[in-house]
Amino acid sequence: MIDKYLKTRQKNNSILLVGLDSDFERITENVLDFNKKIISNTHDLICGYKINIAFYEKMGPKGLEILEETISYIRKYTELPVILDAKRGDIGNTAKAYAYYYFEHLAVDSITINPLMGIDTIEPYLEYENAHVFALALTSNTGARDFEIPDKLYLKITRKMNELNKVYKDKVGIVVGATNTEYISEIVKNSNNMLFLIPGIGAQGGNIKELFDSLNNYKNILINVSRAIIFDENPRQKTIEFNNIINKYYQSKE
Amino acid sequence: MIDKYLKTRQKNNSILLVGLDSDFERITENVLDFNKKIISNTHDLICGYKINIAFYEKMGPKGLEILEETISYIRKYTELPVILDAKRGDIGNTAKAYAYYYFEHLAVDSITINPLMGIDTIEPYLEYENAHVFALALTSNTGARDFEIPDKLYLKITRKMNELNKVYKDKVGIVVGATNTEYISEIVKNSNNMLFLIPGIGAQGGNIKELFDSLNNYKNILINVSRAIIFDENPRQKTIEFNNIINKYYQSKE
Repeated sequence: MIDKYLKTRQKNNSILLVGLDSDFERITENVLDFNKKIISNTHDLICGYKINIAFYEKMGPKGLEILEETISYIRKYTELPVILDAKRGDIGNTAKAYAYYYFEHLAVDSITINPLMGIDTIEPYLEYENAHVFALALTSNTGARDFEIPDKLYLKITRKMNELNKVYKDKVGIVVGATNTEYISEIVKNSNNMLFLIPGIGAQGGNIKELFDSLNNYKNILINVSRAIIFDENPRQKTIEFNNIINKYYQSKE
Repeated sequence: MIDKYLKTRQKNNSILLVGLDSDFERITENVLDFNKKIISNTHDLICGYKINIAFYEKMGPKGLEILEETISYIRKYTELPVILDAKRGDIGNTAKAYAYYYFEHLAVDSITINPLMGIDTIEPYLEYENAHVFALALTSNTGARDFEIPDKLYLKITRKMNELNKVYKDKVGIVVGATNTEYISEIVKNSNNMLFLIPGIGAQGGNIKELFDSLNNYKNILINVSRAIIFDENPRQKTIEFNNIINKYYQSKE
């Protein structure tokens, strides 16, 4: 699964994901048409799409249809991997239901999961041959300071995911937000080269230079930008700009 | 919102919720028909329904339609509250998207939320007039021992939710699983009479006597049973049996 990210990363010279957080309240046209336009304008520049399911669930049954059609469209016209940002976490039989929809029906490449309830709520996903998950470790919101940062929960999660990743052969990565950078170098030291999904750049205000300083030359990362690209007047131009600034830091340390 | 639970609790002499975890792979008929039959056979015996959205999402767009029709059916033919078991947790603008679907569109009475990402991921729900949330504090699976129990995270969550509940006037409750009973009395002491949603009885093997011993006469609780009722040969009879045994312990301490 990770190969797919490496392949597109190399092909398009980009570690950037575009987040299709297509909130219908901010979009005047049909949401599927909106997504198709974004995809047409970005697919040759980036290394994958992240889709937050919340903005589709918000539209009810019609929203899930648009989600399914968007994923089909990406499959048909690009070779890019798709991350479904679902942040799910539930007990075994319920996790199996979610896993069925994501890895059997939608057949996405990765999903995000919430590890709070523990390892037995993550394993049902990993049993799918094509599964890959990113577990929330340190998120980009201020609320990270409520439970994730005290007692270094982010580090305990990182270590547990590391163990799990050995058992399930590189099927596990972690979400590391770009804003709370003072904790990232410690995560890097304990991550044993797991793939990082990094949100928080763009609308959320994360600083790219600070992020790369804290990453200390860690290379196995994907950086997601959602609103700052898709709601820009010129998404293609904005994507090029994000690529350029990210690559400046990413490659300067090579 | 809590009034609605108190009202039906009193009317039907029951603190039991029936969980409509209607996994289509275990059901030979149409899932909506299955749900209607369960509702017809239980609505006068219980104090509400809990619906885990995973089993509906598993069916894609059609599943969300059945979810919406099930909730409409409960609204039309009963006065029972509906808890949507979603265990969501995401940053502000995404939480708003979820909140819109649950409290504006579906207009359920409560949802379950995952508090890992912190207070700012919970507040968007609470801004709805009709909102009520149950935050995961101590879950009923063995994985609770991975992150919830070490460093007493369950207690930190309980305390934070308690603070939040004061600000948002009884809109916050917590999920307290019936299996890890040795930690419950400590939660009870710190919960300031927040409403508990208690899963883990029935198929998950929680022991009712142990549960009530650990609750130490705490009265503000709802107990959910899903699979052990809905997949029983006689759901009505099984509901009566659960009610009887729960009430024996619940009322003996009054």
